[in-house]
Amino acid sequence: MGAGIVGLASAYHILSQDTGRRVLVLDKAASAGQGDTAKTVAGVRNTFTSEVNRLLSETSIDFYTHVQNDLKIDLHLEFVGYLWLLTDKLVTRLEPVVSRLRKDGVALKFWEGKELSEMLPQARLTLDSGDEEGKIMRLSSITAGLQGLKCGTLAAEKLVVFYEQEIRKLGGSIRYRECVDSLIVEPLQKLGLPKEPLVWQEPKVMGVKTDHGEIRAERTVLAAGGWSTGLLNSVGIDSHVRAKKRQVFVVKGTSVSKLLYSKGFNDSAVLPLTIIPPHLIYMKPNRAEGTFWVGVSDYVGGAFTFEEEPVAEDDFYTYDIYPVMSHYFPHFKDVRPFNKWAGHYDLNTIDGNPYIFEESGLIIANGTSGSGMMKADAIGRIVAAAQANKEIATLYGGKHFQVAKLGIESRQVEREEFVI
Amino acid sequence: MGAGIVGLASAYHILSQDTGRRVLVLDKAASAGQGDTAKTVAGVRNTFTSEVNRLLSETSIDFYTHVQNDLKIDLHLEFVGYLWLLTDKLVTRLEPVVSRLRKDGVALKFWEGKELSEMLPQARLTLDSGDEEGKIMRLSSITAGLQGLKCGTLAAEKLVVFYEQEIRKLGGSIRYRECVDSLIVEPLQKLGLPKEPLVWQEPKVMGVKTDHGEIRAERTVLAAGGWSTGLLNSVGIDSHVRAKKRQVFVVKGTSVSKLLYSKGFNDSAVLPLTIIPPHLIYMKPNRAEGTFWVGVSDYVGGAFTFEEEPVAEDDFYTYDIYPVMSHYFPHFKDVRPFNKWAGHYDLNTIDGNPYIFEESGLIIANGTSGSGMMKADAIGRIVAAAQANKEIATLYGGKHFQVAKLGIESRQVEREEFVI
Repeated sequence: MGAGIVGLASAYHILSQDTGRRVLVLDKAASAGQGDTAKTVAGVRNTFTSEVNRLLSETSIDFYTHVQNDLKIDLHLEFVGYLWLLTDKLVTRLEPVVSRLRKDGVALKFWEGKELSEMLPQARLTLDSGDEEGKIMRLSSITAGLQGLKCGTLAAEKLVVFYEQEIRKLGGSIRYRECVDSLIVEPLQKLGLPKEPLVWQEPKVMGVKTDHGEIRAERTVLAAGGWSTGLLNSVGIDSHVRAKKRQVFVVKGTSVSKLLYSKGFNDSAVLPLTIIPPHLIYMKPNRAEGTFWVGVSDYVGGAFTFEEEPVAEDDFYTYDIYPVMSHYFPHFKDVRPFNKWAGHYDLNTIDGNPYIFEESGLIIANGTSGSGMMKADAIGRIVAAAQANKEIATLYGGKHFQVAKLGIESRQVEREEFVI
Repeated sequence: MGAGIVGLASAYHILSQDTGRRVLVLDKAASAGQGDTAKTVAGVRNTFTSEVNRLLSETSIDFYTHVQNDLKIDLHLEFVGYLWLLTDKLVTRLEPVVSRLRKDGVALKFWEGKELSEMLPQARLTLDSGDEEGKIMRLSSITAGLQGLKCGTLAAEKLVVFYEQEIRKLGGSIRYRECVDSLIVEPLQKLGLPKEPLVWQEPKVMGVKTDHGEIRAERTVLAAGGWSTGLLNSVGIDSHVRAKKRQVFVVKGTSVSKLLYSKGFNDSAVLPLTIIPPHLIYMKPNRAEGTFWVGVSDYVGGAFTFEEEPVAEDDFYTYDIYPVMSHYFPHFKDVRPFNKWAGHYDLNTIDGNPYIFEESGLIIANGTSGSGMMKADAIGRIVAAAQANKEIATLYGGKHFQVAKLGIESRQVEREEFVI
């Protein structure tokens, strides 16, 4: 279930690993990647403190690089970098994190405040002591920058099309415009009593009911992001995730372009995907469009809601994002978004790593928490291993991964500290 | 928020520990303990594999014993025991658990199958090889029993009244028939902009809006069980729990009485609270009423739902509980329930221990997972410590407990394996 990036990567790897398996992908939308996959900002980074998160993203990024460089399928993958702008306080706080990441081989470039000022001449990195507006917004001077080098952006729709085509090449089926209404849960041995499975029967997920009828399968995989909680609640399986609205605004303009085409950070001669402290507002460069996509990470106060058609609110740009962004970067002065959209975060608020677990025969992959695109390939390989009852998955590049580590009972992940 | 057992115990301990504090308890019902507290079976046990669960229940049971024996307030606390009936398979599986619990000083009595047969002469503990009905229900012969001795039952309403009276004695206020509609979340420094708190403001829970108006408090504590998720979702705080319907059926009769007043297990000369394998159907003796209260533990297939007025379904007794119960205990043959009710489990499906955590100034206590009554006193003490920003709580008997162990970020609990 789900032709988003996680569902597609899973179907692809099931077909690749389990030759002879018949695979059907279902999605309610008219084409692939139209749910929250279409709403991603499509950043990729390997800068996670959780070793598991890092492994998932590193190997996925390596696979996407292979697709683009070796298979010659342009994913618009560009290593423009992720640039965390840092205050003095953050420099101190991140010091142990940075040294740990460096030790583990994560490529990081540290920028001194002076260097940043030269590369971003029109930015206001140093705030005056009399800056009341800055104080009200709890902003401090930016005195350094940390750039993740194996980080950047890609075009989500290109990756979606890649997986979709591979699925078809391998003989997989995809049905669009077919909506899953419920999971079929039945006892292994049906007796015809009311409301089976009863307490003393062994329940098993046998397939799904859609608006077109019943589909029974040997294995059912749920990779429907925010849509999964409702389906799971109905049968008493905890999805372990909460959905929160994620809004993206697109801005451009003459002065914005000056910031966008900043030199010195990468070969693409654009500003990296830049994260502004301390509220984690981010700006993603889109070089081809000449725009920034801006948004902000999850925060307390934003309700957990799941809507079929979430809407980005102008007020959110005006009052929440714009004052901070334009304070550091006067390039945005009076710039209004010319495009916007909203999707959902599928949040694991406990440890920030994805979940892949089995319950009553159903495989569930969720909790991508805003970084599903950059981990999708690894998640797909682990789902493929799980549905084949394998304990170990092989990630791109040959690294082994114990499937149970992302499950519930034997979960073994570190709480992610490097959230944007 | 909440005049259930957790809210009351919390208010009581805040008042006891934090003299001079003004405390107001709010509840939508007309009197105390009318929500899921009224729907409990009110068993108490110290037989948990999680050390934290054991500590919470042990010290709470000790406090309830003190209330009854020293303060001379009858809670109808009776150590009739919990009796797990065991199949050969369960004996083997529980062996390491039992030796661990014994090592930790948990009083356990092991019954041989022969002893059980003598004490329960009319029970069908040994199933024939030709017992097709038993096989369909996945039942096996009961070959042993494990009795927890510091386990038993109490009268929930007596404990509720005890805490309620103590709160009033200590000068606390309680308002009934006042329903909390929402949490007041505001920035520390209000600016009068739309939709505050904004992303760059620090959000804090300042109190609640009720159907009677606003109530502002220095500290707000949410102890509303299944009612808490809706309130928290609206402000983007993860409750981490799921609600599931919990149904209780009351049965009596001449042959039922024979089983009820079984001798040899305890001084009360009743059958202990007995758990039937492998589906964890339980029967709680109510000596005064001459009844058993029967129900079944959480199971896959039962939907996660939260209803204001959940209803116990006759079909659930008839098809899910009765066939298993009457198979082992023919005493129940043709016995229909003469009373029934339903409440909710407030489930932590990850580790089965409660949660006590703080977010944006709000203290949340939930996830009691069916054992809130037996842990309420300890939970109340930990909530009292948390709201006073203390790192360590002192439980009844003087044992210290690190508050953060039950939180989210630094959670340190073992997954509970001894579920009934």
